Amino acid sequence: MVPIDADTSLLPSREDIAGAAARIRGHVRRTPAMAVGDDIGGVTGCVLKLELLQHTGSFKPRGAYNTVLSATVPESGIIAASGGNHAAAVAHVGATLDIPTEIFVPEAAPEIKLRRLEGYPATVVRAGALYDDAQAASDERAAATGALVVHPYDLPEVVAGQGTVGLEIQEQAGELDTVLVAVGGGGLIAGVASWFRDDVRIVAVEPERSRCLGAALDAGAPVQVSVAGVASDSLGARRVGDLAFRAASAWVDRAVTVSDEDIVATQLVCWERLRLVVEPGGAAALAALRGGAYRPAPGERVGVVVCGANADPTPIAAPKGH
Amino acid sequence: MVPIDADTSLLPSREDIAGAAARIRGHVRRTPAMAVGDDIGGVTGCVLKLELLQHTGSFKPRGAYNTVLSATVPESGIIAASGGNHAAAVAHVGATLDIPTEIFVPEAAPEIKLRRLEGYPATVVRAGALYDDAQAASDERAAATGALVVHPYDLPEVVAGQGTVGLEIQEQAGELDTVLVAVGGGGLIAGVASWFRDDVRIVAVEPERSRCLGAALDAGAPVQVSVAGVASDSLGARRVGDLAFRAASAWVDRAVTVSDEDIVATQLVCWERLRLVVEPGGAAALAALRGGAYRPAPGERVGVVVCGANADPTPIAAPKGH
Repeated sequence: MVPIDADTSLLPSREDIAGAAARIRGHVRRTPAMAVGDDIGGVTGCVLKLELLQHTGSFKPRGAYNTVLSATVPESGIIAASGGNHAAAVAHVGATLDIPTEIFVPEAAPEIKLRRLEGYPATVVRAGALYDDAQAASDERAAATGALVVHPYDLPEVVAGQGTVGLEIQEQAGELDTVLVAVGGGGLIAGVASWFRDDVRIVAVEPERSRCLGAALDAGAPVQVSVAGVASDSLGARRVGDLAFRAASAWVDRAVTVSDEDIVATQLVCWERLRLVVEPGGAAALAALRGGAYRPAPGERVGVVVCGANADPTPIAAPKGH
Repeated sequence: MVPIDADTSLLPSREDIAGAAARIRGHVRRTPAMAVGDDIGGVTGCVLKLELLQHTGSFKPRGAYNTVLSATVPESGIIAASGGNHAAAVAHVGATLDIPTEIFVPEAAPEIKLRRLEGYPATVVRAGALYDDAQAASDERAAATGALVVHPYDLPEVVAGQGTVGLEIQEQAGELDTVLVAVGGGGLIAGVASWFRDDVRIVAVEPERSRCLGAALDAGAPVQVSVAGVASDSLGARRVGDLAFRAASAWVDRAVTVSDEDIVATQLVCWERLRLVVEPGGAAALAALRGGAYRPAPGERVGVVVCGANADPTPIAAPKGH
């Protein structure tokens, strides 16, 4: 990793992101955007980018495809560490491109996400208690095999791939004043901010108990944080990515937090009013709007990235009124 | 009801449908369309109109809003009979427009749909075993109160409202060769066919064991049919609407059937590959494409209306691979 400062030269340019969009076209879905009104509770209207309908149920294939398709893949294939959405994305990329794939998953990975890996030809290795341990084991293995490492968030190619979410929402929603994006390791917000730059107000949304970006902005550099809460399987990074920190330092207007209660309430509303099953991390950005962590001005045009679907719908979707 | 013939003069014109679109704008969602590839099983690619994301989880609010907003509503309000999606739609319309609403539901109505009515101020009356009985009770009540009857499918205003699905998919998907639409009483296909007319191949999709349109086309007039199968709560009309029969006689290329097994398999694929919870009736049109009941030619541009989400997701969404 390079030293941290406000330098954005390592971040993808708009041309890089447009290039990524061309590179991954046909491999990823152009997920839809949908305008919603005030019927989802305390929101005067916004445009939802329904990225939860992406292959594997999250935005992660964008960055993974862009990384793999940008590289000369060695015979040993690709390798990644993740207990969740990135794991499924890399397994999907490996399967569809017919590339040998190893996925290192921590013991803490949720069962519902591990079971999704079973349908892929990827080799799945349980390694260590938490994500950091799995990443270390994966890095060690990569050094031995020479496999291409597909990092979950801190690679320029990954950030450029995730930035195509920004490119698309701009094409689909037209002029926006503000875009709300959830932050785990920060690959998605780094990409979206690298696309919009100073043209749109970018608001980062983190769980109260997993706020690695907010802590980094407070401290002036990425720092280790504790991780907890309902969204920790997708947003629970212990340290924000260096690229995300640079992008946020340059272009993110503010980092707000949402409570677990706001996240769960938003998951319920997403089912009851939109018929969408949204995982906690996928609901966090909308929760900031619903719960008041971010309050738009009258007439402000707000976009919200709904970025993950991989929840067990059973507790969400029991019918309880319209 | 008027005598049946191939006369289409009772059906809405394109201008009527465009007028309906203007009338209901702001009350209904412009649901997204999304192109999908060959990853949803045996399909070479199509555009899905995600009408299951409409208010109340089905297309029904379009026709209901257009009917109510086209009329002078009496003080006694609006009335409808349905055990399912139409009931929720009329209750939603009544609640949002602050109009007294009575809904007559048959004993056969599924619990999951009845519970959705509880969140609305509408008066819900259990009346009779099956839909026909509830409709008769509703008609009797309407004659006494003077309430505006919002029929589930056989009113020109309802058909014009549902036709806005056709207008939108044309705007969103561009040139299509074929559109697949599921048929219950036929309001949706009557509307979509009244929009596209001879410009696009319209394919009607019915469950094997609830095929009132196919039977009517065979007989040359609407006839009573038996009703069974997994989709009967939404597609189980015992007699196709007169307007739908006229529209189908004029503009529907063919009526195909799908098995319960194809429907259930398609529901599973919709969750596993798209993260959408789709009810059986909502999955029927896509099931025709996946199961081979309709086989497009190479390069044929196919649109599919995914029209309802109101299923219990628990049996659908247990994770079982990607």
